[in-house]
Amino acid sequence: MKSLEPAWVSGFVDGEGTFYVGIYRNPTMKTGYQVLPEFRIVQHKDDIQILYKLKSFFGCGSVRKNHDDRYELRIRKFETLYQKIVPFFERNQLQTKKKHDFIKFKEIIHLMEKGKHLEVEGIKEIIKISNLMNRGLKHKALEILKELNASG
Amino acid sequence: MKSLEPAWVSGFVDGEGTFYVGIYRNPTMKTGYQVLPEFRIVQHKDDIQILYKLKSFFGCGSVRKNHDDRYELRIRKFETLYQKIVPFFERNQLQTKKKHDFIKFKEIIHLMEKGKHLEVEGIKEIIKISNLMNRGLKHKALEILKELNASG
Repeated sequence: MKSLEPAWVSGFVDGEGTFYVGIYRNPTMKTGYQVLPEFRIVQHKDDIQILYKLKSFFGCGSVRKNHDDRYELRIRKFETLYQKIVPFFERNQLQTKKKHDFIKFKEIIHLMEKGKHLEVEGIKEIIKISNLMNRGLKHKALEILKELNASG
Repeated sequence: MKSLEPAWVSGFVDGEGTFYVGIYRNPTMKTGYQVLPEFRIVQHKDDIQILYKLKSFFGCGSVRKNHDDRYELRIRKFETLYQKIVPFFERNQLQTKKKHDFIKFKEIIHLMEKGKHLEVEGIKEIIKISNLMNRGLKHKALEILKELNASG
């Protein structure tokens, strides 16, 4: 199987990829909250083969059902995001507004690498950055920010 | 402005492009029908700049409103489709199922280049091919096929 070209992958991700940072309540964490960044590509099940090709291209991630007849390649492992995904999109620049999402995503990954997501102030900063991503306000994350601000 | 990389364009089109062949009733045509192939890329208005970059990359097409807050780069000129778009995607291969749409599109463009779309039998053949594209039955085209079969 011929491997994908890096520039093709960058173009495809500009269309179909998502850089996402979820903030979740998690009582097992010291702060009570967990930060969960992920990179994913969703396709109709007819195109599941391209998800496997991308998985093999990146050498990581898992292909799973998204919803209905859609499947996704999802990469959540922090080391992989930090060591592979972020450097890949630094070398192979995105061309659409998704580039701004990537830049915010990278900022958050770098904060996490310094352990900032394990402190209340760091989580607040991460929420503020993630709020500028994916074209929209994240109500749940903003609720958490309110809770964090209220609690100190 | 740095030009786009061909492989990036191919990846982006795999995600966001459409190869489409419309069949329309048109009493000014000898057969009564018109075949109208087009290549288009639709984006949210926030990403209109990438449509202009792609227009400049291909050296053709026009950027126009699609619907609501979406815009498209549309290429309809036959010579451009035949001489630029088809050869580009022969050199820069698509990787998803969209490749099959492209192959059918190319078949139709080549039939049109031979003037087949100006004959009833040719239009029937084109409808049958276009019916295998874009994941779906085209009710209007099938209606036209029925009319053509009925009329001879």
